[in-house]
Amino acid sequence: MGNILVVGSLAYDTVKTPTGKIDGALGGSANYFGVAASLFASVSVVGVVGEDYRAEDSELLSKRNVDISGIEKVAGKTFHWAGEYDGSLNEAKTLRTELNVFADFHPKLPESFKKSEIVFLANIDPVLQIEVLDQVQRPKVVAADTMNFWIESKITDLLKVLKRLDILLINEGEAILLTETSNAILAAKRISEMGPKHVVIKRGEYGIVIYSHDQYFCLPAYPIGNVVDPTGAGDTFAGGFLGYIGKSNQPLSLDLLKTAAVYGTLLASFTVQDFSLNAIKDLTLDQVEDRRRDFRQVVTFPT
Amino acid sequence: MGNILVVGSLAYDTVKTPTGKIDGALGGSANYFGVAASLFASVSVVGVVGEDYRAEDSELLSKRNVDISGIEKVAGKTFHWAGEYDGSLNEAKTLRTELNVFADFHPKLPESFKKSEIVFLANIDPVLQIEVLDQVQRPKVVAADTMNFWIESKITDLLKVLKRLDILLINEGEAILLTETSNAILAAKRISEMGPKHVVIKRGEYGIVIYSHDQYFCLPAYPIGNVVDPTGAGDTFAGGFLGYIGKSNQPLSLDLLKTAAVYGTLLASFTVQDFSLNAIKDLTLDQVEDRRRDFRQVVTFPT
Repeated sequence: MGNILVVGSLAYDTVKTPTGKIDGALGGSANYFGVAASLFASVSVVGVVGEDYRAEDSELLSKRNVDISGIEKVAGKTFHWAGEYDGSLNEAKTLRTELNVFADFHPKLPESFKKSEIVFLANIDPVLQIEVLDQVQRPKVVAADTMNFWIESKITDLLKVLKRLDILLINEGEAILLTETSNAILAAKRISEMGPKHVVIKRGEYGIVIYSHDQYFCLPAYPIGNVVDPTGAGDTFAGGFLGYIGKSNQPLSLDLLKTAAVYGTLLASFTVQDFSLNAIKDLTLDQVEDRRRDFRQVVTFPT
Repeated sequence: MGNILVVGSLAYDTVKTPTGKIDGALGGSANYFGVAASLFASVSVVGVVGEDYRAEDSELLSKRNVDISGIEKVAGKTFHWAGEYDGSLNEAKTLRTELNVFADFHPKLPESFKKSEIVFLANIDPVLQIEVLDQVQRPKVVAADTMNFWIESKITDLLKVLKRLDILLINEGEAILLTETSNAILAAKRISEMGPKHVVIKRGEYGIVIYSHDQYFCLPAYPIGNVVDPTGAGDTFAGGFLGYIGKSNQPLSLDLLKTAAVYGTLLASFTVQDFSLNAIKDLTLDQVEDRRRDFRQVVTFPT
């Protein structure tokens, strides 16, 4: 494996947390995912931006050797999300979503992207996720994310997507909503019956649960006391997770998913320490490996 | 070490969960703790019951060789708690607390109990917790639990208790309340500055966080899909945790706390699978060890 395609948003975010506020800062699932995954593998992005998208923001990805030839620039304004977090920082309250150029977006894959070995369909309209899957040729791993908005408004299309996935990554609350169960353990198993062979439930500060071939794997988050802004943590996790899978060039086994989840967890722990992509844009693998040594003390025990 | 003293409640509970309802079933922190700890070490209980306390309920502990000579039987009714859980089963809503014989309770330790090596002050009035500490002679480990009610109504006494503890076990929400912080990571560190050298934060279905000598340890819960009734899970955890510490007869190190937390976690995972003490009253160490082998697959990863 190696080449990873992500289709997702490039955005400007306005975010308020108990620590502070940013206005019009760089965000979007494709940016968080791309920066994280590019630490491990070669990454291509498909998405759309408006005329206001700053040149320095495009360079964030291109400087990390991410192929941005699939990012269209069209007339209009870039997608804009505004949200805020309360004291516990566990859930974002969306204040405003301005789709702008995203409203008429239909992903068009450059020819060379169609042979990507790993495809990540970030949290976008399931109709667009299907359009991407109809363009790629036999990827080895197809993974996706989704959210409550699509579960509530486009469930039929979403169920079609699920049938075509190897891996679904989804927030705990949304997994429970999708499956009408009462906890992540039941939800993960139920989702695996809807299509995805492997299910990753994201629990924010509590870490993740993976369900794969009748086995559970539970991993706590790396302990961060001073969380500044959790925006992008899930997409950063996905980038580290799939990036490591791409780098490994191995078939999906539970052991591979476990190690990949450790890297996803570590990368996400950096993201939440600052606003926007500030804490990961210059991150090196050495810094990740340092934190991995700490993490081992935090989550392992004498057996 | 070996001999463990617990001072806590013996109660009749009325509990409603999405799965069903029990009325007047056996409960109380000392019962859950005593059954769990007695798998590993010798246990003595100090508490009070009313005339309505059934002989078969006293036998639950005595059959497990728990010394119940410190349980007073007095005129009146046994402590009664009524609560219910909503769909997520994460938080009990207390419907009614009838203190009954507990209202005038003052713990009196039989002479032989005063030399207990490990003391667990379950979630009772901090004034009573101090009365216990004033009676014991140089225990090696003093641990306690508390709750929002005491944080809000008896903070001065509670702070005195904290200064005399080796270990505080506390629910996440209550740890955050006590420290006025925003998450378990900050709260654990802050509590350690208030006295307890080791802090165990209980996160329900998300497991636990331990903070000890500037190190964190995070352990997920054992994955249980069909949670029937979480009542007593925290006291069962404490019983397995301190029981294992008693059995080990070693000074408190982070590695010992880690292994003890694994046993506490496993025992608590049985408790939540049925109402009252039904799932743990006949539990054997073999069953715990079987589940420990499963748990290892769930929480360990290639390093």
